[in-house]
Amino acid sequence: MRITTVGLDADDTLWHNEGIFRLTQDRFLALMADHADSEALQARLREVEKRNLRLYGYGVKGFTLSMIETAMELTDNNAPGRLIAEILAAGREMLDHPVETLPGVDQALGELADEYRLVLVTKGDLLHQETKLAASGLGELFVAAEIVSEKDASTYERVFARHGTGAAQAVMCGNSMRSDILPALEAGAYAAHVPYPLIWEHEMADAPQNHPRFAELPAITDLPAWVRSLS
Amino acid sequence: MRITTVGLDADDTLWHNEGIFRLTQDRFLALMADHADSEALQARLREVEKRNLRLYGYGVKGFTLSMIETAMELTDNNAPGRLIAEILAAGREMLDHPVETLPGVDQALGELADEYRLVLVTKGDLLHQETKLAASGLGELFVAAEIVSEKDASTYERVFARHGTGAAQAVMCGNSMRSDILPALEAGAYAAHVPYPLIWEHEMADAPQNHPRFAELPAITDLPAWVRSLS
Repeated sequence: MRITTVGLDADDTLWHNEGIFRLTQDRFLALMADHADSEALQARLREVEKRNLRLYGYGVKGFTLSMIETAMELTDNNAPGRLIAEILAAGREMLDHPVETLPGVDQALGELADEYRLVLVTKGDLLHQETKLAASGLGELFVAAEIVSEKDASTYERVFARHGTGAAQAVMCGNSMRSDILPALEAGAYAAHVPYPLIWEHEMADAPQNHPRFAELPAITDLPAWVRSLS
Repeated sequence: MRITTVGLDADDTLWHNEGIFRLTQDRFLALMADHADSEALQARLREVEKRNLRLYGYGVKGFTLSMIETAMELTDNNAPGRLIAEILAAGREMLDHPVETLPGVDQALGELADEYRLVLVTKGDLLHQETKLAASGLGELFVAAEIVSEKDASTYERVFARHGTGAAQAVMCGNSMRSDILPALEAGAYAAHVPYPLIWEHEMADAPQNHPRFAELPAITDLPAWVRSLS
């Protein structure tokens, strides 16, 4: 079984993301301190995000709209205008935030790109993800970037059929068990989990137990050796 | 020169879209009637949309955020909370709006799909466009749907190379001179303009003059005969 293709998640696998969401959320908590206690606010924000996921999908624009909606709900539509303006500004700053690649990413991807086809597979706002890939300087290493609305088994089947030689000859690597690992394994691919210190609650799931095509790797720099060991 | 592939724009080519934006904008004007006159408000909204395009891209979520930002700016951050809640609701309703295909679309696409590879090429929010395509019942007729952040000549080169046999053997059909016609011609494809009664100012451009690969068609039902005439 020869591996031909390596799929890589983007946010919190190649560059920092959840940390930026947390900083914005902390700013939101501070702005709302007079109106709601921190725990109630976080619970309500999660509830609003979850409710809107069907319409907004993933990404900063939907998150910004959900923060505004949460502020309106928790203040009985009496949120001070300055607060709304601040939330809008926070959303724009997230979209304009510089991209910081994670340690070891350049080296690992450089090694992998010499031997395998690399495909970026990510959720989020279309334009924002394209912009981040361009800003990361990693774009040239990928044969394709697939920005998708949902990551399920059929997503990985389609992506690895289109840009590689099928899921059975592909490895997916990412920080989310729920979105990167479990559906890639279900599609028949290999999958390597590289954890990130923070994770959005929505992305949490249990690790697969004793799965023959799964590896837990401490860092992305361990990925090239693992992929080579499969060939 | 045999045509193998037909690209189709989605919004206002296959189904109504700008009308829904206009209805929402009218609702916004009515909500803001106490704070700004209609003309000033529309001018400011266009300005805010244009300023945010670089960060938000195209689609309903960015439009909703820009309406809120416009409301805050024109009221010195004193927009009534109910107004913000109404704008949020209007945005969600746009995302949840039923898809109404335009007259003749089913028949024209059915005919074309028998002889050519059909590719959907559209801007907008990723999840929203996928949802609309699924709701339209037209999904099965397309070999691929490309939701893109910008439509320029390189977009059409890439899309027709990936899903067809190159731009020289492809026709693009849409309602926007700026996004569907001019860049497709520049890429070397044929292009058919089918106008829609309303158009967003940002999408306006002059028609090409005496271009050998361009046609102005009164309706999408005229498309199959024109495409066949090129083969």
